[in-house]
Amino acid sequence: MELLKERILNEGHVKAGNILKVDSFLNHQMDISLFDEIGKEFKSIFAGEGVNKILTLEASGIGVAVITALHFDCCPVIFAKKTQSKNLDGDLYLSQVTSFTRGTTYDIQVAQKYIRAEDRILIVDDFLATGAALLGLADIVAQSEAYLAGCGIVIEKSFQEGGALLRGKGVRVESLAKIKAFEGDKVIFE
Amino acid sequence: MELLKERILNEGHVKAGNILKVDSFLNHQMDISLFDEIGKEFKSIFAGEGVNKILTLEASGIGVAVITALHFDCCPVIFAKKTQSKNLDGDLYLSQVTSFTRGTTYDIQVAQKYIRAEDRILIVDDFLATGAALLGLADIVAQSEAYLAGCGIVIEKSFQEGGALLRGKGVRVESLAKIKAFEGDKVIFE
Repeated sequence: MELLKERILNEGHVKAGNILKVDSFLNHQMDISLFDEIGKEFKSIFAGEGVNKILTLEASGIGVAVITALHFDCCPVIFAKKTQSKNLDGDLYLSQVTSFTRGTTYDIQVAQKYIRAEDRILIVDDFLATGAALLGLADIVAQSEAYLAGCGIVIEKSFQEGGALLRGKGVRVESLAKIKAFEGDKVIFE
Repeated sequence: MELLKERILNEGHVKAGNILKVDSFLNHQMDISLFDEIGKEFKSIFAGEGVNKILTLEASGIGVAVITALHFDCCPVIFAKKTQSKNLDGDLYLSQVTSFTRGTTYDIQVAQKYIRAEDRILIVDDFLATGAALLGLADIVAQSEAYLAGCGIVIEKSFQEGGALLRGKGVRVESLAKIKAFEGDKVIFE
């Protein structure tokens, strides 16, 4: 997606530890016009999949997921929670996520009543790197026995292992910008 | 907002500790059509205020804030972060939030470059109860010297002190559903 790549080139900053800072439009300040174009793009990629629900993870996936839902006939968006919440009860799908960058492990959870075997799920998230969070979300969809249409990702760091791990499990992963390397402070797309 | 009150009456569950569970449409599964109506309502309430940016707090405020932004000419949405993030650097606005329900204190932070003195800010959040989070957001707007148009709240528990605290500081607070009491498992609106 050219518009997105331009924004990454113009506004992204590469920091130590392979961090790409895109907080001017993606994960702190959010550019809603850009999100609308991203949602349109996901719709065109996953058209014909009969997606009826979008699944994401708090917090930075929520914005893109919600705008994307507008392009899928205002389908519901469910965001998995990272912490025990007083707002969740009843039966939960749980999956364990290990953050390789932070060295921590945490549970993500979704109330079972919101994903059923007859659902057709699109997972949406802002970043794919090690794939830890997305593997957890895909695991939750597998537990529910719903159909997983795929993962719509805004930015994939394809030099990290997450994309290959997910695709190796047969998950369709579509990323709007794929970064194959950082060279100094320069972003190199695939 | 009648549509919202109906949803609360039909789907909300009152739990011990004055918790209102509305996870079927507001803060776990999100009903995007309803969010669109909520956004329209905030636009009609704050029309003429010249709002050019929306501020919210991760995580459950983000969905409503993003859809609301569509009704304010796709203005940017900034979500304050609760934890130290590798994605934030440079000068930050910080405010301390004490969660009375959880007995914890945490910082919320916004990169200074995204809120400037010339901005006209609308704060959007899903719940107002003790007001701790909103007082923190309003404090950040005050630090920036931007104009605070007000707070657009989906559900206010008006039997708790947050609304009075904010209004007492001269902040305009507009809540789409105001709950004055829970009687057993029944929700009583103002």
